[in-house]
Amino acid sequence: MNSLIEQLGQQASKTASVLANCSTAQKNDALLAIARDLPAHTDEILEQNALDCKNAEQRGVAKPMLDRLRLDEGRIAAMAQGVSQVAALPDPVGEVLSMWQRPNGLTIGQKRVPLGVIGIIYESRPNVTADAAALCLKAGNAVILRGGSDAIHSNLAIARVMKSAVAGAGLPEDSIALLEDTSRQTAVDLMKCNRWVDVLIPRGGAGLISSVVQNATVPVIETGTGNCHVYVDQSADLQMAADIIVNAKASRPSVCNAAETLLVHKSIAQEFLPLAYRELTKAGVTLRGCPRTYQIIQAQPACEEDYATEFLDYILAVKVVDSLEEAIAHINQYSTHHSEAIVTESYAASQQFLQQVDSAAVYVNASTRFTDGFEFGFGAEIGISTQKIHARGPMGLKELTTTKYIIYGNGQIR
Amino acid sequence: MNSLIEQLGQQASKTASVLANCSTAQKNDALLAIARDLPAHTDEILEQNALDCKNAEQRGVAKPMLDRLRLDEGRIAAMAQGVSQVAALPDPVGEVLSMWQRPNGLTIGQKRVPLGVIGIIYESRPNVTADAAALCLKAGNAVILRGGSDAIHSNLAIARVMKSAVAGAGLPEDSIALLEDTSRQTAVDLMKCNRWVDVLIPRGGAGLISSVVQNATVPVIETGTGNCHVYVDQSADLQMAADIIVNAKASRPSVCNAAETLLVHKSIAQEFLPLAYRELTKAGVTLRGCPRTYQIIQAQPACEEDYATEFLDYILAVKVVDSLEEAIAHINQYSTHHSEAIVTESYAASQQFLQQVDSAAVYVNASTRFTDGFEFGFGAEIGISTQKIHARGPMGLKELTTTKYIIYGNGQIR
Repeated sequence: MNSLIEQLGQQASKTASVLANCSTAQKNDALLAIARDLPAHTDEILEQNALDCKNAEQRGVAKPMLDRLRLDEGRIAAMAQGVSQVAALPDPVGEVLSMWQRPNGLTIGQKRVPLGVIGIIYESRPNVTADAAALCLKAGNAVILRGGSDAIHSNLAIARVMKSAVAGAGLPEDSIALLEDTSRQTAVDLMKCNRWVDVLIPRGGAGLISSVVQNATVPVIETGTGNCHVYVDQSADLQMAADIIVNAKASRPSVCNAAETLLVHKSIAQEFLPLAYRELTKAGVTLRGCPRTYQIIQAQPACEEDYATEFLDYILAVKVVDSLEEAIAHINQYSTHHSEAIVTESYAASQQFLQQVDSAAVYVNASTRFTDGFEFGFGAEIGISTQKIHARGPMGLKELTTTKYIIYGNGQIR
Repeated sequence: MNSLIEQLGQQASKTASVLANCSTAQKNDALLAIARDLPAHTDEILEQNALDCKNAEQRGVAKPMLDRLRLDEGRIAAMAQGVSQVAALPDPVGEVLSMWQRPNGLTIGQKRVPLGVIGIIYESRPNVTADAAALCLKAGNAVILRGGSDAIHSNLAIARVMKSAVAGAGLPEDSIALLEDTSRQTAVDLMKCNRWVDVLIPRGGAGLISSVVQNATVPVIETGTGNCHVYVDQSADLQMAADIIVNAKASRPSVCNAAETLLVHKSIAQEFLPLAYRELTKAGVTLRGCPRTYQIIQAQPACEEDYATEFLDYILAVKVVDSLEEAIAHINQYSTHHSEAIVTESYAASQQFLQQVDSAAVYVNASTRFTDGFEFGFGAEIGISTQKIHARGPMGLKELTTTKYIIYGNGQIR
């Protein structure tokens, strides 16, 4: 084990026990200090960011990635505003979820407490540095950030400002740690630092997430990939269905809650597909369809692979199905279990879909794009879990906590 | 990837979606059929168990392990009774934890659903086969059991009876799968079967659990090891403290909620230690103490290692501490974060201990031996989680479920 990561982990663990005993006011003061200091250090942060951008350009990094990397005054202000918003959220720590008395007189309560040390492994967007640190801090956790090498100068500058703001507000500077060494080995060491790190949350593309799942011995909360479906039932309001699929596919194709496959009941395919085709095409979407689809509208033939792909692009797979049951079976086979929607006017179909589709968020008559911590009303989001343990779906502050049992006795023995 | 495990996993996943849609009555019928059929097949099970015991004796297996392996009519009856009790518990599936409406009219509910496919990896006690399968089934999950090679004939006999009972009650026979091949490779394949297995729960000694944590890419719920502490505060009722430490240490030393270290405030050490010594010695306990301890009572010198050891035996480490703060720091350093108790008459000390000790269960004036699903009133227990994500402390039926968001709209787009 890398002794650097061991040391960092041990320090973070010590800091976590300080943070677990801080008041909400102390944590909010630190967050507001960060929100105040980030814009005040705009020049310094932009200077370091320019270095990262120059390096990335020289390496010939693709344009969308360059855009994700680049900061400007507005983006730094938005980062700071995000931190203020976290300060304004209710503190999840200390809530007693339930408390009961046993026949022997023991009173047992389940109390919400911080997770402890959270490792965040992420890619090129430097705003994650501020977002993730703010959420972890609010929930009373120490955080170890491991950003991508592309953004290292920007991340270091942001972390420097945050650490100094936190220390100025009287909390441990080590509440926020950022790995300067962005080598693969350091990331792997972090993933295996079970003694000190309580949980890892990877944020990024499918490759990053799969690498963390494969390498980590520390518990992981898997986030992200979304192969989402919209199913248009035979009883659907067809205009509503068209509006929903256009929104779910084309309002922001690069995000995980965007739809990737449209399923259409055979009895309305003849009427619905031309309508959907017109509106999707107008939005710039190209279609890949099954044989029954391209007999009705213009579409490239879809292969098996297309139904399993998260395009993250203006491409939509289309399939005509014989029944609601076939739609549900298709979804449960190909989905990444993120978000799925049915458009229907049938009560029975809506209930069957909600019951049988095995995904984090299942919608009736709404776009899959609502799967988001803010849209759900959590006021924040650290990611969207696509695994089943600990958290499923959008994760807010509560998902950055655990519980402990507190037991009041008066001498009970067993 | 082993195609056998892949096939088994895929089949279990298919079965899980059937089980997720079964009624409580159907699941209870299957459980009651198991409870009825196990005692009816006592001879067959005992015959296979005799084979396991003979093999184990020939290999010179230690006596306590032989005892754990051996079944008799009473143990089979107890197994069946355990399954009946699970049938009588409330079904956790279907509960809507909360539901709220968003300003845009979307109604969002969080509903409890089964986890899906659960892998249980365990050691030589064949009763785990019935216990674990019953709990998984009640919570609507398919289970893949991987028991130890020592107990393979017993486990196969028990699984055969259960599968046939389940099928007779109209549920899929594959609701319960037991790996016949108990090689290490098969276990490792199961630990890496992320596509089909939702969670792994290891049940057994520290070696087994560590091997699962190190090898698994499937999410794991770590159970078990307990280096538990009792701290006797300066204001303690000393007779209550003696009763608690004797109970916590000696009522059943081989279990994870037994105490391993006694911490004593220096101001009452002179009075308390001789009392504790008399009662512990009477109960057969030997002590390993710090220098201040063995100046007062007879004890072997304790080394650093002793404070980090889960003895699971009639051995207790003892340390005299200067303050409550030192006791808390010692616990947070050496504990496995399972269960810890303070004995005190001080309100402030009790609150500080409950707040600052970072363990799954923290007690005031009660024995650590109460950390148990039955003692907590859950009516069942699949294990005691010592990790922080998903579940912490005793796990009952609720901990064998996840949630999904169900969202009712009327055409909302974003």
